[in-house]
Amino acid sequence: WLATIAKVAAGEKMVAKIASDDPRKVVHAFKVGITLALVSLFYYLRPLYDGVGGTAMWAVMTVVVIFEYTAGGTLYKGLNRAAATLTAGALGVGIHWFASKAGHAGELIILNGAVFILASVVSFSRFFPAIKRQFDYGATIFILTFCLVAVSGYRVDELVVLAQERLSTVCIGIAICLIVSMLICPVWAGGDLHRLTAGNADKLADSLEGSVEGYFDGKEAPKAQGFKCVLNSKALEDSLVNLARWEPGHGPFSFRHPWSQYKRLGDAMRNCAFCIEALYGCLTSEIQAPELMKKRLSDACLKLSSNSAKALRETAACIRLMERSKTLECLIGETSCAAAEVKRELPELLPAGDAEVDHQLVTTKRNHSLIEAMPLVAFASILAEIPARVKGVAEE
Amino acid sequence: WLATIAKVAAGEKMVAKIASDDPRKVVHAFKVGITLALVSLFYYLRPLYDGVGGTAMWAVMTVVVIFEYTAGGTLYKGLNRAAATLTAGALGVGIHWFASKAGHAGELIILNGAVFILASVVSFSRFFPAIKRQFDYGATIFILTFCLVAVSGYRVDELVVLAQERLSTVCIGIAICLIVSMLICPVWAGGDLHRLTAGNADKLADSLEGSVEGYFDGKEAPKAQGFKCVLNSKALEDSLVNLARWEPGHGPFSFRHPWSQYKRLGDAMRNCAFCIEALYGCLTSEIQAPELMKKRLSDACLKLSSNSAKALRETAACIRLMERSKTLECLIGETSCAAAEVKRELPELLPAGDAEVDHQLVTTKRNHSLIEAMPLVAFASILAEIPARVKGVAEE
Repeated sequence: WLATIAKVAAGEKMVAKIASDDPRKVVHAFKVGITLALVSLFYYLRPLYDGVGGTAMWAVMTVVVIFEYTAGGTLYKGLNRAAATLTAGALGVGIHWFASKAGHAGELIILNGAVFILASVVSFSRFFPAIKRQFDYGATIFILTFCLVAVSGYRVDELVVLAQERLSTVCIGIAICLIVSMLICPVWAGGDLHRLTAGNADKLADSLEGSVEGYFDGKEAPKAQGFKCVLNSKALEDSLVNLARWEPGHGPFSFRHPWSQYKRLGDAMRNCAFCIEALYGCLTSEIQAPELMKKRLSDACLKLSSNSAKALRETAACIRLMERSKTLECLIGETSCAAAEVKRELPELLPAGDAEVDHQLVTTKRNHSLIEAMPLVAFASILAEIPARVKGVAEE
Repeated sequence: WLATIAKVAAGEKMVAKIASDDPRKVVHAFKVGITLALVSLFYYLRPLYDGVGGTAMWAVMTVVVIFEYTAGGTLYKGLNRAAATLTAGALGVGIHWFASKAGHAGELIILNGAVFILASVVSFSRFFPAIKRQFDYGATIFILTFCLVAVSGYRVDELVVLAQERLSTVCIGIAICLIVSMLICPVWAGGDLHRLTAGNADKLADSLEGSVEGYFDGKEAPKAQGFKCVLNSKALEDSLVNLARWEPGHGPFSFRHPWSQYKRLGDAMRNCAFCIEALYGCLTSEIQAPELMKKRLSDACLKLSSNSAKALRETAACIRLMERSKTLECLIGETSCAAAEVKRELPELLPAGDAEVDHQLVTTKRNHSLIEAMPLVAFASILAEIPARVKGVAEE
């Protein structure tokens, strides 16, 4: 009993969390409900019903299957479905006409053979990366429609009429989906991708500053782990890029917006996130340099990290505004300077080897200070590389 | 013309490449063809046709939609579809019975309202991570079936018969799919996951050895970039883990095989791959230490890398055989020793600061040697950690 109540409470909390994280998800759920209720009207109201024939349920099916969260997803599935239904329907009718010229047994063999061959070929074609990316759903619908038309044709006499009706109801379903998806609070994959990329650049900046500060303060900043989000966002990014390609121009994006640049930008940022990962590893490592050593290097390192973070934030701002920044180049220059300074200060940290104290101790100390400082330097040189790469990608 | 020929040739090459990379993909394509041809027989042959009624096309649709490359994928979709069709069908018939008690207008309102509410609620539930992972397809089919039953009920009188027929044909489709998918050359997601994980451990070992050798030789080993595969395999791994959960026991795996361990193992290996990434960054960096310095450290470093690679290969072998290894712990001990040795030799590399030559030069040199050697040390300490983590995960 209590366990059930606790579960319900946890479920409610989760609903509230998902809804408050992204209210568009609630809107999406209502949009699906509205669209389905709308499509059902085609069936309930007799005049409409007579218009599209008894195959109105195809419209319902289409809506359920193609309505996706993003407008790009709905467009991808809708256009795939329309094209596949049309071509497969035409091919099915053609094969059927051809088969009907053969006798009864011949018809069965031709139809079944065509189903076998086409299903095999199209199934195999889905393993091609290019087809998988943009036409996976279309391939499924192609097989589906072809089989249905070929198989139905064996029993139903008015095959062409049937195929036509099916096509028209599917198109009605797709049209309603697209209208609702794109006109009522649309969720654009492109916009999401844009915000994700800019947000990731900010997260990297926070994470970088947090890690370096945490390293010298000894306490971990809550934002230091932001790089993990960036490392894990590859799959989401790839799918958004694929969906964004299908979207028409919206807001500040034109139809042929260079979406693949976001992919390159994402890769560059993940490259950067690898470095921060290494840095964070130093922060949580058991082997730590003595505080005194740390202090001597902290100024230069903090300056480097804040400069780099500034460059990253400027990049994020550039992405948001879709403008080339004038200050970005300058910031990158400063970053390189700061990196050079860290490198200059580094050798001075090492106790000179004049053997006045226990030599072993000095060696150990020296060793430690290296371990502490070195990833920063390695990191800095890579970081100085990243904004340069990022710069070339900034849009427009 | 020539361009077309070139394109066809390129296409053929690609087909040959995909087929030779994984012949199971060709088999899969034929399996789809055979299954569809088999299901079509239900429609072509009259006795069977009379048995399942005019809704035989539902069987065809089911086969096209649920037949996936892996057995786990087919099981996931098949079981989801069966459960969703059953529950949604029952619910649809129930709602319909309830609605028929109201008048004509009331019926329409109740049915349309139920469609709206259920579609909204179920659409929203798909955003829950747990549902998304295991029941996403079921949620779609639930909405689909409910809408179809509710909507059809308004016109068709023998609703229960219709629902029954639909359920039985869907079940026939699912059964044929599962039989073909699991009995004819099955592709188990679990087995693929197992091979992927073991292969990744081997790739890490090759990549580690390749990077370190390349660093001292100056020429890049072709296998050094294997870590990139490991970094990119997260999405594939996650989906395989989700699908493997649905599979029954097969080969050496029992039904409740601890698949989530593979996820943790994968994360540990990606952790390791980050280190190799950093190491590889040193290899391609512009700033290189003088050859002489490199030579002095090369023995210790090569020993460390070959020990670590051995430990990784032993881990891969453990995963393959699903046994705890007796030598693994010993190998990890050796790795730690080698890491300690590198750390010991490191300070000796630095020219003592006795200012006999140009001090600036010595400092520069010292600096360089640090840059060169340090990632190895940082890396070694993390690497020494990894096999320890891996060890706890080794199955059985």
